[in-house]
Amino acid sequence: MTWAASLAGCSPSFILDFSASINPLGPPESALVAIAANLSNLRHYPDPDYAALRQALAQAHGIDPNWVLPGNGSAELLTWAGRELAALDAIHLITPAFSDYGRALRAFGARLVGMELEMGTLRRDDGGLGLGIETCLVPPEQRELAGIGLLLNNPHNPTGCLFTAESLRRFLGRSPLVVVDEAFMDFVPPSQQQSLIPWVAQYPNLVVLRSLTKFYGLPGLRLGYAIAHPDRLCRWQGWRDPWSVNSLAEAATLAVLKDTDFQHRTWSWLPDARSALFRGLQHLPGLRPLPGAANYLLVQSDHSTVALQHQLLQQHRILIRDCMSFPELGDRFFRTAVRTKAENQRLLSALAKELGPEAAA
Amino acid sequence: MTWAASLAGCSPSFILDFSASINPLGPPESALVAIAANLSNLRHYPDPDYAALRQALAQAHGIDPNWVLPGNGSAELLTWAGRELAALDAIHLITPAFSDYGRALRAFGARLVGMELEMGTLRRDDGGLGLGIETCLVPPEQRELAGIGLLLNNPHNPTGCLFTAESLRRFLGRSPLVVVDEAFMDFVPPSQQQSLIPWVAQYPNLVVLRSLTKFYGLPGLRLGYAIAHPDRLCRWQGWRDPWSVNSLAEAATLAVLKDTDFQHRTWSWLPDARSALFRGLQHLPGLRPLPGAANYLLVQSDHSTVALQHQLLQQHRILIRDCMSFPELGDRFFRTAVRTKAENQRLLSALAKELGPEAAA
Repeated sequence: MTWAASLAGCSPSFILDFSASINPLGPPESALVAIAANLSNLRHYPDPDYAALRQALAQAHGIDPNWVLPGNGSAELLTWAGRELAALDAIHLITPAFSDYGRALRAFGARLVGMELEMGTLRRDDGGLGLGIETCLVPPEQRELAGIGLLLNNPHNPTGCLFTAESLRRFLGRSPLVVVDEAFMDFVPPSQQQSLIPWVAQYPNLVVLRSLTKFYGLPGLRLGYAIAHPDRLCRWQGWRDPWSVNSLAEAATLAVLKDTDFQHRTWSWLPDARSALFRGLQHLPGLRPLPGAANYLLVQSDHSTVALQHQLLQQHRILIRDCMSFPELGDRFFRTAVRTKAENQRLLSALAKELGPEAAA
Repeated sequence: MTWAASLAGCSPSFILDFSASINPLGPPESALVAIAANLSNLRHYPDPDYAALRQALAQAHGIDPNWVLPGNGSAELLTWAGRELAALDAIHLITPAFSDYGRALRAFGARLVGMELEMGTLRRDDGGLGLGIETCLVPPEQRELAGIGLLLNNPHNPTGCLFTAESLRRFLGRSPLVVVDEAFMDFVPPSQQQSLIPWVAQYPNLVVLRSLTKFYGLPGLRLGYAIAHPDRLCRWQGWRDPWSVNSLAEAATLAVLKDTDFQHRTWSWLPDARSALFRGLQHLPGLRPLPGAANYLLVQSDHSTVALQHQLLQQHRILIRDCMSFPELGDRFFRTAVRTKAENQRLLSALAKELGPEAAA
């Protein structure tokens, strides 16, 4: 944010941030109350077994607590997934890919092979409702996976594409280790979710990573978890330090998991806000948003998005996410969070102004 | 604490805890105020460079911010130190050793060789003021260290022995990597500290680990840091996730580093409280405390300390730390934190009662 604030010529708190994909309704009051009520617990070490936390997370998914390992954000758990993936012959990584995947895999010397998504397919209108992954890959998915690990996210970041659980499940019989990062799955209404959690009990080669901090708007607090076979989770626990989750994150998690009001408000805000933003972007000249299932949209542009990003900052104090960290996308794409309807409208008006008079008409 | 509470037949909050070595004066009000004031920052990701935090920590030690890496407790940084140590031919570990050292080294397949402390030497009265490490080892320190890493803490846990910086510095020319965990160094009054931080700029093979959570009584919050050559810290940063320190830990750290009042209160409480506790323990039958420089004392006992621990719990709701996790010590040692004078007196009275009528006299 420091470079953005200096470009905008204001303090970071004045910038309307569409670059981070965080729930704008958060953090829920329940989390802040729980944190305040637990300040006196800071004088104790957290329980290294995190029994209460595992119990609550397991209950939320209807599974056994031994199949859950909480972490200091899902990024911490990605490190250990990366270590196990790196021990395989190679890793197929769906691209474009979240840049921290490269970090976790390179940290342990993994051999990476890209599996490219075909952008044309992702533009299909049903992309938000679940696509078979095999139809989205270039060239058509037909690969040898013996000895090869797989790392991907669902919904996919940055495209927002939701893959069907059924299409992902087909990998489980073929690859020795499949890691699915479901950091944004909570944003999909429960009836449409395509989580692989129901398959974990059957496939010891499956790891599902989840994040709580995006959905609950608490990225500063750090709380994620892995769901996988207990033997694997015990191994990870033997690698990392014993007190990886801080006490306040633990207390906030116990509170927000019960906060069904906040969950329902999020599910009722997102679909409409996203549709309106999608349509608004579609009507701007030179912009083509991709349908998405998460709380962000990927937008293709005829113009340089880096120039556009700078104009939005300097003229409107609005920050969008350029895609320069995704080499397959580069300067012709940007990603924007879905925020409240009024904030999304501010983004659309600013874009209209910057993209020329025909847009403003 | 769960087993202790069930043995004591009360809720964990009723147990007087001498088992964790945490400053009983903490957490400072300044930390709690900073946390409360920063709850609204939880909606943002922490700065992955932790520029403000590094700056403040560096300033506290009069060094450059590039030589500091904050972590999710020093235990997280120990993991990465363990990875680098494990790449060497073997590691000399001063024993008895904090059990998490074994975890961090075994996680990466290290070959461990113990370097045993001679308990008789540590009983010398000047043990609290700094001993040459070579005089403390059995057999006299005279080892080949080419290709061999070294991991130790200073002050030493659980003996409380403070080694002189000068005696440790002699290892730096001989071993390829020396990791010194100074988690309890802050408890030593500044004029008597034996930190190796002044030598880091000169020795790229030196890593110093520090903890903030013990001195400031905030173990639930997780904040530690490493001081080492920038190349090494950059490598570690490429291994771990980008947001390892939560925003509230960051805010609390910035506040407590300036809290000189709390620091001085701690330095004026500890020496007297520890001396009084030491003398009290010395006068109890069958107990022989070791002089110590930190906020805990190791006590040798003629009787089973596990039995004693259970009696203290059941009869007095007091928890001491048995030494069963230190194989060299076992059932004939216990460790006790130094708490406030009144609390220490409660421990002494309870011990007197349990150790028989001659003690109570």
